Amino acid sequence: MASAAEVLASALRAVGVDPGSVDLEALSTRRSVRVSRFEDVVYVGFRRQFRGVPEGTLVAFRRGEQIVVWGYPSIKRMLLPRVAVPRWFPGPTVLVEEKMNGYNVRVFTLGGMVYAATRGGLICPYTTRRLRRLYGGALQKILEDLGAEGSFIAGEVVGLENPYTRYYYEEAPGFGYFIFDIFKGGRQLPPRVKFSLAPEYGLKTVNLLAEIPATASGVERLYTIVEDLEKRGREGVIVKDPEGRVEPLKYTTSRTNIGDIRLGMRYPFEEGRSFLFPRILREIFREWETGRRRYGELGEAILAPAIEAVEAVSRGGRLVEEFELVFANEVEAEEVIAYFASLGVHLEIAGVARGVDGVRVAFRKPRKSEGEIARILETGISPLD
Amino acid sequence: MASAAEVLASALRAVGVDPGSVDLEALSTRRSVRVSRFEDVVYVGFRRQFRGVPEGTLVAFRRGEQIVVWGYPSIKRMLLPRVAVPRWFPGPTVLVEEKMNGYNVRVFTLGGMVYAATRGGLICPYTTRRLRRLYGGALQKILEDLGAEGSFIAGEVVGLENPYTRYYYEEAPGFGYFIFDIFKGGRQLPPRVKFSLAPEYGLKTVNLLAEIPATASGVERLYTIVEDLEKRGREGVIVKDPEGRVEPLKYTTSRTNIGDIRLGMRYPFEEGRSFLFPRILREIFREWETGRRRYGELGEAILAPAIEAVEAVSRGGRLVEEFELVFANEVEAEEVIAYFASLGVHLEIAGVARGVDGVRVAFRKPRKSEGEIARILETGISPLD
Repeated sequence: MASAAEVLASALRAVGVDPGSVDLEALSTRRSVRVSRFEDVVYVGFRRQFRGVPEGTLVAFRRGEQIVVWGYPSIKRMLLPRVAVPRWFPGPTVLVEEKMNGYNVRVFTLGGMVYAATRGGLICPYTTRRLRRLYGGALQKILEDLGAEGSFIAGEVVGLENPYTRYYYEEAPGFGYFIFDIFKGGRQLPPRVKFSLAPEYGLKTVNLLAEIPATASGVERLYTIVEDLEKRGREGVIVKDPEGRVEPLKYTTSRTNIGDIRLGMRYPFEEGRSFLFPRILREIFREWETGRRRYGELGEAILAPAIEAVEAVSRGGRLVEEFELVFANEVEAEEVIAYFASLGVHLEIAGVARGVDGVRVAFRKPRKSEGEIARILETGISPLD
Repeated sequence: MASAAEVLASALRAVGVDPGSVDLEALSTRRSVRVSRFEDVVYVGFRRQFRGVPEGTLVAFRRGEQIVVWGYPSIKRMLLPRVAVPRWFPGPTVLVEEKMNGYNVRVFTLGGMVYAATRGGLICPYTTRRLRRLYGGALQKILEDLGAEGSFIAGEVVGLENPYTRYYYEEAPGFGYFIFDIFKGGRQLPPRVKFSLAPEYGLKTVNLLAEIPATASGVERLYTIVEDLEKRGREGVIVKDPEGRVEPLKYTTSRTNIGDIRLGMRYPFEEGRSFLFPRILREIFREWETGRRRYGELGEAILAPAIEAVEAVSRGGRLVEEFELVFANEVEAEEVIAYFASLGVHLEIAGVARGVDGVRVAFRKPRKSEGEIARILETGISPLD
């Protein structure tokens, strides 16, 4: 059994950092670089950028085998596509992929088993188990065929049955996995390639919406696409160079930006607070560009959910997120509860039901805003200036 | 000539910190505790809280004399006066003073001269000179009569002629000083006392609006007062125990909260950003309490000024604050420009005119948001996620 410091040293060597230059004992007690365990995998998750290793990178070990799964880079955001697309991309065309509203999951294989890592560099037991049941064979096969060490797949988990981000998608109401990138030996395949490769294994990709000229007039088509997504309540687009020569750029619908504020302000002291400025910035530029002036909609998205939250707490109600997860059995459910507890998130069980697809457990996740609001209602005094 | 480290050591002793326990050389190179000079005063400003010394505390030395001017404490904010007033104050009554929208200035005397310190613990040359010309004799006299070492006066400078916060007040359109606290030997006189003491010296206090019972029903009167201030476009109230047995509490009008957002969003990357959440929080509780739902007003205050700023920059316009200051002569004007430059703020002179009250200089203060917006207009890409 290797010590945490020994595991750390191996992980650092794997990502090209000299372990001799690092105080391993000190590092292993911090939470920014974290040694964890899942089943018989021991892994190091880089929860923050460290010595040039990207945030979210994960180095996993199992019976003498190891893999480096690099952190998924954050994608730059366009505020003005007409300006950004022609300036950013070498051309002549760009691919317009759909951006789905879920959570980013990297899938890798080690010792013949499939694992799912979340953005922060942790293996999520729930996501891992559901992906194994739904697409385990296909994922295992494609990763084996990619072959080179350090191959992994990046995609979005969407639908209502997950502990992170829940939006209804008609093509995956409960739980779906849509691939947006394939990495072979740590290097991304050209964006265009994944659309032909994934279906060969029976795996789904995000939608390829269009290939358009990377010119200001080509971008008019992008605006039409976004308008259509807007109407259909979808999140937005990722624009990519077909050959992957430059980083992609993202652009979201107004409905998503305002909707995020609306959802976030149900928990005003948490998402509400952090969601506000970046999303308002997006609306400022969109409204400037389009000449629309939807003041009331923004004001309502900010105030109404928060006032409702205050009203709920004032009547003794709770501020909790509620969701259902699906497990093969009770042991899996307990494992997920333990996993979230280790992250400081204490899930409450609201109900258990047996369905055709397994054990369905209804959870409640208590929110910090409840206590903040309760305290204000009791004292009348603001926690802020 | 004492070294910066020697001055620091004396200042630390004066506020009860053992200088032997502090690395003086290191401290003197940081900006959190700063040694400065104004005329023949050398002083140490505690720009941040340090070892229990409150933020904004200032220790000034002049020819063997010294004074400690303690930092002015930040006043807790009520969100629900009906709850806060009866719970917070011992009663039976509270004083309701007007809160004015300007900047907090502590006035002290050293070696027969009057000095004005801003909230951050710096002597402001502009404020000092104007206060000396307007009320120098009276301030000198009251501070001499208070006598005990470490006496100082705290008040609000309001009006349009200052470099900090500009709101029109009919009783002081250009520059006025309204006292809200008198400290004798570092200890605050009972709030009630200042209202009789200041006028004896020809000095103005903030308005005493009412004395009300510290009960839920007494607070109804407070709501009426705030409604009246709301109509008159004034900022709000400070509620104080008449004997000063507990800290005061503040409450501002909705017009001020929304107006702050509107003004701040002209500089979306600066005040706009920091103003948003605290002010929205105030509105959430006010609207919950009153049943009003002014969504459009909030949305407009957030978006309209920012869209205007984008429009202005897109046409090659500037984002600058413009204001006029009044000086006795050109030397004073240069001194103020040098003072702001030492704080990293570079004022541009837009014009100079000679008036009956002295030299009037029009300034422009360039804003960081201009560059941020220009960059977005050029690249189309967001500096935020």
